[in-house]
Amino acid sequence: MPIVTLTSDYGEGSPHIAQLKGALLSRAPQATLVDVTHSVRKFDPLEAVFHLRQIAPEFPDETIHLMCVKVACNRPLRLVKYRRQYFLGADNEAFGLLFDEGEPLLAFDLSAVRSERPLPTFPEREWFVPAAAHLANGGAPELLGRVAPPLQPGAWIPPRVESDALIGRVLYIDHYGNAVTNITREVFERVVGERSFLIPMRSTRMDFRKVHAHYDDVSIGDSVALFNAAGYLELAMNNQSAPGGNGGADALLGLFRDQDVRIEFTS
Amino acid sequence: MPIVTLTSDYGEGSPHIAQLKGALLSRAPQATLVDVTHSVRKFDPLEAVFHLRQIAPEFPDETIHLMCVKVACNRPLRLVKYRRQYFLGADNEAFGLLFDEGEPLLAFDLSAVRSERPLPTFPEREWFVPAAAHLANGGAPELLGRVAPPLQPGAWIPPRVESDALIGRVLYIDHYGNAVTNITREVFERVVGERSFLIPMRSTRMDFRKVHAHYDDVSIGDSVALFNAAGYLELAMNNQSAPGGNGGADALLGLFRDQDVRIEFTS
Amino acid sequence: MPIVTLTSDYGEGSPHIAQLKGALLSRAPQATLVDVTHSVRKFDPLEAVFHLRQIAPEFPDETIHLMCVKVACNRPLRLVKYRRQYFLGADNEAFGLLFDEGEPLLAFDLSAVRSERPLPTFPEREWFVPAAAHLANGGAPELLGRVAPPLQPGAWIPPRVESDALIGRVLYIDHYGNAVTNITREVFERVVGERSFLIPMRSTRMDFRKVHAHYDDVSIGDSVALFNAAGYLELAMNNQSAPGGNGGADALLGLFRDQDVRIEFTS
Repeated sequence: MPIVTLTSDYGEGSPHIAQLKGALLSRAPQATLVDVTHSVRKFDPLEAVFHLRQIAPEFPDETIHLMCVKVACNRPLRLVKYRRQYFLGADNEAFGLLFDEGEPLLAFDLSAVRSERPLPTFPEREWFVPAAAHLANGGAPELLGRVAPPLQPGAWIPPRVESDALIGRVLYIDHYGNAVTNITREVFERVVGERSFLIPMRSTRMDFRKVHAHYDDVSIGDSVALFNAAGYLELAMNNQSAPGGNGGADALLGLFRDQDVRIEFTS
Repeated sequence: MPIVTLTSDYGEGSPHIAQLKGALLSRAPQATLVDVTHSVRKFDPLEAVFHLRQIAPEFPDETIHLMCVKVACNRPLRLVKYRRQYFLGADNEAFGLLFDEGEPLLAFDLSAVRSERPLPTFPEREWFVPAAAHLANGGAPELLGRVAPPLQPGAWIPPRVESDALIGRVLYIDHYGNAVTNITREVFERVVGERSFLIPMRSTRMDFRKVHAHYDDVSIGDSVALFNAAGYLELAMNNQSAPGGNGGADALLGLFRDQDVRIEFTS
Repeated sequence: MPIVTLTSDYGEGSPHIAQLKGALLSRAPQATLVDVTHSVRKFDPLEAVFHLRQIAPEFPDETIHLMCVKVACNRPLRLVKYRRQYFLGADNEAFGLLFDEGEPLLAFDLSAVRSERPLPTFPEREWFVPAAAHLANGGAPELLGRVAPPLQPGAWIPPRVESDALIGRVLYIDHYGNAVTNITREVFERVVGERSFLIPMRSTRMDFRKVHAHYDDVSIGDSVALFNAAGYLELAMNNQSAPGGNGGADALLGLFRDQDVRIEFTS
């Protein structure tokens, strides 16, 4: 039972999702389809990459991931085999960031595949669906296209190390108002290590000086820095006591997407 | 593995959706359930028809489509077999528009079916679920009710041909702000053909004079008319370069739902 | 084919949903996953209970329900077997309200289960997923933990009977603006019975004096009280004629969540 996941900026409830699902199930009836999200910011493949990197490790081998953001007919379309899973997407400024540098991957050019019905305004339907169905039916990726040239270098902005600080940025504000940064646990441990540090907020009272393990390690209403389930440093609030309350870290600490986050070394 | 699709105005995340799914899976455990959308404008079956007409051709034979918009117990409920698929809905002003005129269809009156648990305030659960489960389990449609009288004439407003113009209207503004009209490629080719034309917008600079094949056939930031994947004329913007940007055709060209769109013949 | 349902406050389109689904399908590939809703008001387990109580009876025996609202690692996590279905949740102020008093249930302490990958900030992934997969694969609940102490008494506010009135409250405003109260048909029939009554609204003209069977038992544009498909008294409008119209009972009658609803006996 192969799994196909869908990630897009179509909007939740967009009928384009069902168009893709119908077309996939017509060709691979035994596939299990899973929506990752259709709420990616419009035309923002970087956000799609961020989500896909979080969810892919939870899925079994042979899962086929469709990244349906900023796909156009005049852009190279790629199938990548990576860590025993498949990723289909347009080779835009973000797609290459799905894959860790130095890890082996196989990329194929999808331009040879085309649907039986030309649908030039919906390349996901025309190119990704027949390719995904082929894979879901056990077909070899090599049959879908020639080996592709190296992927575009990504536009990811990695955390920057300066003499007195590690500087990352807010990648994403989640549904609870938590600010997820591009600083992984691994980078943090390598660069900051056991040093004491300070993440300045707009008032001294709100500064972060510690990384906790759980939201509940601080009192309700307090801010908390932690590594989230995907391993990224998150600046959050423990606000569980307020049903519906929008007192997230974004509102209370003034955090927003794409903002720099400075971890200053204080020892 | 029969497929059942769900289209409603319940709102994404409405627990009514899971009520229907639980009831369906209790009776037809092997069914594959696919959400088309639950974001139809409230009590607007015409929008549901528009979406269902787009997605149905992607699904395989024997797919069962539930149209859960403006269903009431005092309204005739219908099962229609059409192009080897099934459609369940209330025979309201829009339901008949699912089916092309002149195409053969078989309509049945569902009033004989009733759920074992009377749920008079939720007719989709009481009538559609047992009928859909019967079909999903391979039952014959004839067992669900008598052949029904002709469907209500639809309230669709077709494009109008005048001596100097083809006049359609905006059916739907999509998630990107594109305006989808009721003018199909077929009508356009028959009426406009090779003539030159003009679709006037609020300023001359924005007028459409050409139909392109792809969004990318114009520069980023420019407007573009094209036939979308479902074959409808769409007035759109190529705004892929602006992540999250809401510069859709609706905002920039002043297009809105139900608005007339005039294609004036200029030769 | 075991069914696993998901109810959360993650927000529709949250990638956390796909993280859980991937983790579940990795361990129980034959499971059918059904979203109940991810639109529960943040940190409001009472709303989740309300939805789960409505949908659970539609699902078959052995269905596994995950209630992912206000789950934290320092809170007791419970598996409850009740009416031949399984419920996983945190034993917070609301969880116990899933189960009718006096009905037999078996509760287990989930603290012994842990995922192979410690994910302390995502307890649903770490505790619920392996437990649900164990059950979906036919495992016995007894193997997941010791029998647990009685559940926390719930914070549900039951309808109150006074000498001249039955007093309930609005639990939930649905997508159409209908106000769903905590008064069940059973309580209403026991307390109000055949007596005549009055539910005062902000103007006399809007008072309710009757419970109807269907929305359509009143004219379009009129208000209507009825028992909804789940058996709760609902104060609603029959506003089907207005596509997209937001003229719900909430706006027109001034009803809001947590508001008292007085049913005054007039005979």
